[in-house]
Amino acid sequence: MSNTRFSLEELARCAMGEVLGDPQLQIQGFAPLETAAVGEISFLVKAAEAGKLANFQGSALIVPLDFKIDSESLSLIRVENPYLASARIHTLLLEKTFVAMGIHKLASVAESTILPTEISVAAFVSIGEGCVLGERISLEAGVVIGDGVEIGDDTRLLANVVIAEGCKIGKRVVLYPGAVIGSDGYGYATDNRGFHTKRPQVGIVQIDDDVEIGANSCVDRAAYGVTHIKAGAKIDNLVQIGHNVVVGENCLVVAQVGISGSTTLGRNVVLGGQVGVADHVSLGDAVMVAAQSGIHSDHPAGAVIGGSPALPQKQFARAAIQYGKLPEMGQDLRRLKKAVAALQAATESESKDTGNE
Amino acid sequence: MSNTRFSLEELARCAMGEVLGDPQLQIQGFAPLETAAVGEISFLVKAAEAGKLANFQGSALIVPLDFKIDSESLSLIRVENPYLASARIHTLLLEKTFVAMGIHKLASVAESTILPTEISVAAFVSIGEGCVLGERISLEAGVVIGDGVEIGDDTRLLANVVIAEGCKIGKRVVLYPGAVIGSDGYGYATDNRGFHTKRPQVGIVQIDDDVEIGANSCVDRAAYGVTHIKAGAKIDNLVQIGHNVVVGENCLVVAQVGISGSTTLGRNVVLGGQVGVADHVSLGDAVMVAAQSGIHSDHPAGAVIGGSPALPQKQFARAAIQYGKLPEMGQDLRRLKKAVAALQAATESESKDTGNE
Amino acid sequence: MSNTRFSLEELARCAMGEVLGDPQLQIQGFAPLETAAVGEISFLVKAAEAGKLANFQGSALIVPLDFKIDSESLSLIRVENPYLASARIHTLLLEKTFVAMGIHKLASVAESTILPTEISVAAFVSIGEGCVLGERISLEAGVVIGDGVEIGDDTRLLANVVIAEGCKIGKRVVLYPGAVIGSDGYGYATDNRGFHTKRPQVGIVQIDDDVEIGANSCVDRAAYGVTHIKAGAKIDNLVQIGHNVVVGENCLVVAQVGISGSTTLGRNVVLGGQVGVADHVSLGDAVMVAAQSGIHSDHPAGAVIGGSPALPQKQFARAAIQYGKLPEMGQDLRRLKKAVAALQAATESESKDTGNE
Repeated sequence: MSNTRFSLEELARCAMGEVLGDPQLQIQGFAPLETAAVGEISFLVKAAEAGKLANFQGSALIVPLDFKIDSESLSLIRVENPYLASARIHTLLLEKTFVAMGIHKLASVAESTILPTEISVAAFVSIGEGCVLGERISLEAGVVIGDGVEIGDDTRLLANVVIAEGCKIGKRVVLYPGAVIGSDGYGYATDNRGFHTKRPQVGIVQIDDDVEIGANSCVDRAAYGVTHIKAGAKIDNLVQIGHNVVVGENCLVVAQVGISGSTTLGRNVVLGGQVGVADHVSLGDAVMVAAQSGIHSDHPAGAVIGGSPALPQKQFARAAIQYGKLPEMGQDLRRLKKAVAALQAATESESKDTGNE
Repeated sequence: MSNTRFSLEELARCAMGEVLGDPQLQIQGFAPLETAAVGEISFLVKAAEAGKLANFQGSALIVPLDFKIDSESLSLIRVENPYLASARIHTLLLEKTFVAMGIHKLASVAESTILPTEISVAAFVSIGEGCVLGERISLEAGVVIGDGVEIGDDTRLLANVVIAEGCKIGKRVVLYPGAVIGSDGYGYATDNRGFHTKRPQVGIVQIDDDVEIGANSCVDRAAYGVTHIKAGAKIDNLVQIGHNVVVGENCLVVAQVGISGSTTLGRNVVLGGQVGVADHVSLGDAVMVAAQSGIHSDHPAGAVIGGSPALPQKQFARAAIQYGKLPEMGQDLRRLKKAVAALQAATESESKDTGNE
Repeated sequence: MSNTRFSLEELARCAMGEVLGDPQLQIQGFAPLETAAVGEISFLVKAAEAGKLANFQGSALIVPLDFKIDSESLSLIRVENPYLASARIHTLLLEKTFVAMGIHKLASVAESTILPTEISVAAFVSIGEGCVLGERISLEAGVVIGDGVEIGDDTRLLANVVIAEGCKIGKRVVLYPGAVIGSDGYGYATDNRGFHTKRPQVGIVQIDDDVEIGANSCVDRAAYGVTHIKAGAKIDNLVQIGHNVVVGENCLVVAQVGISGSTTLGRNVVLGGQVGVADHVSLGDAVMVAAQSGIHSDHPAGAVIGGSPALPQKQFARAAIQYGKLPEMGQDLRRLKKAVAALQAATESESKDTGNE
């Protein structure tokens, strides 16, 4: 996959790890344990999983601090978090220098937009008037950019991405195929006869640095002001983000989530797949929401919640299990009502018998 | 935002309101209360929220009928429904005359399709054979229109919209980026060995006047006949509408809803976000469905429902709250069963003691 | 619709049925019972529905084996499964010979990709380096194909479909407009400060023969290895399929389903609309899952399940009905607790009265 070689020492530095073995060993690729070959490095998440190494064919391993090995044939990089370290090392091994392909002759760039020379604009890309694009940007085929869009350095827009007019995209952003940024928010006013008048949506979408947004996801422009995706947030495929939403730094928003208008997520919020969040809700930092939940109210920082309406996750998990017992609970209740009625009748008749009034 | 100025009198007329103050006051823009500047008009939804006006910097206000003010420096438009009136006035202030951009030299139009002169066809638009397009239509970059499509006056297809062959689109329709109209419905017949044969989908999609359909939403063509989106319906992003569905006039279908085949919605039905509706269901006029509900059966006009299977909304809300108490309900039941068994035993032994048989 | 005529005998052969009537009768089209005209064939699913034939205007009927008719004016094809037979006959009547349109002058094909002559490449199609495409492939406008993609014979990619680099598509596959194949999987490693590092996604998507994937659906490439959609699987619109998922032969995956990473479906699994399946789950052959369910664990072949967490479908259906009674169950419980407490008190006081200690 990769054309560059790195010494074990260089890889260890990138992952803030310690080399055990030959620091000058040359590594040219990364692969999982099962498929790694000579010249490749792999990783072991937990020392306890060392049994998986029996058939390991690679040349080096990223391992946790408590990993012990007797073999001397294997070079190691010891790190605190092998999962994270392997992501960094794999990324380094795959890194390519940006090669500017220039502007394809079948691209369409409006006159008032001046593009830098260090750029790749593929065929069938359309760029509107008055856009400002940074260096080393890559626009794949079919990308459509409206008037007055700003895009930062090193950002990649994959095939058929749409950025509507006036939106601002940061640096090192990746938008996957078919993502739509800056479509109108969903807002209507309804008259007595039931006809809807559209409320103009005159705000923008602002996407900060290092954000990724998945294939065919949609981020609507604000009614007024800004729909804001903050730095480092990672949004999966087919997600809907309504007008004036704020997604905090480093949030993780899994596939098919829907976030309604004017809702605010703090930093590092995690929304599981298919979660729905109502409008004007505020979720504090690091809130975690189980998949398919429905959130209708605010939750404080650190809350771990699930269900609809959302409960603390542990309570939700217990309730969800109890749910399956509902039919027998209903039956139990009917029996108990009968038994208690019988007991009440018996007590009453007895008290009559014994003249206990 | 806007280049046109309107007098307060003109704005009041468009919103069927009454001017208090200078009818000749010139207004050039609309903004929310917090950001309105001189020359701009804003709106107050409720008289009780007059406290929000403390720092108001705009020149005029749309207010409800019961709004009272002592200041003479502020001009007012009094209306029954400020929310609706502000949408109309804002729209009027933003209105632009259609400017025909003609047909971009990098567009592809089939020979047998004759386009009117008053049209804007952007780069990389593809139009099939035998299409009939009205006046003042705008087709953004990447739009793909199949053979035999009809589109009415003043309709706008935003970037990368796809209209498959034979579909009919009305006047003043807006289709947002990536929407797909007329893809095949999902219908298969399965043999004894589990292989599926596709059932040909030979109908069309008909979209009536003033409909809006959100980004990356899908409306499937009918198996036979028509999938029909009636006038004034407003459909949000990432919505799935199956073959032969009928969406009634002025329905509101919020993001990520899925409507299965042959289901019919009456007029002004409202489906909350992520609702699923089963196939062959009929919902009467003005039915309202809470977000994330699952609808499996017919509901009469005016029903307000939620949950899955759907209950009357109030019952659903109570049940949803009770849901969180399921674990303690289970515990209560176990205790009660024990207590009742003990009472039954006591009663029985006592009746033996007292020889009450 | 169709330009070809077939004799009743030829149609019967394609559906493995038996002709009753004139085997040489010429049929030129297929239509449902209500709209069939002279020269057209229609179908009746059940003999018991013969009442629907009162106004039948067509020339022939596909009927089940137990269908009886007195009229001699109507020709019949008797088959075991009229629903399946009609799909086959309708498909035959619509069949068109592939007409190669060649490569549109506004398409962009990389130099190192050699296309066969029997191909249709529409305007604004972009094909990357080193692709291998089979015969009779149709690529509609706006399709984007990355480097090194392989596509088998007779496959159709509809408007704006995206196939990312290295993916492999089989024969007779149909990908509907806006589908995205091979976008990056969603995988990140997080450091102590909450920053996410992307885990490189270096695998591919492999789609086997006769698969269909609906409009705006997404199939992510594997982290390593292959995300695999096996032969004959039919996937609806707006479906999300995560990295390293395996979808078995002939699975049916209805609209808006989400399948998380590394989950495996056996053969002929059916997932209802909006179902969510967690990661690393395994569903056996022919598992059926009710719409909107959430699957968090493995289920064996043949399981019919629903709810979240999923229960056997019958238990789920009963629980779902009981759910609506939760408020009154809560009330019953409160009353019972009171009644039992009163009975306990009475019993206790009585035992004191009677000196029964």
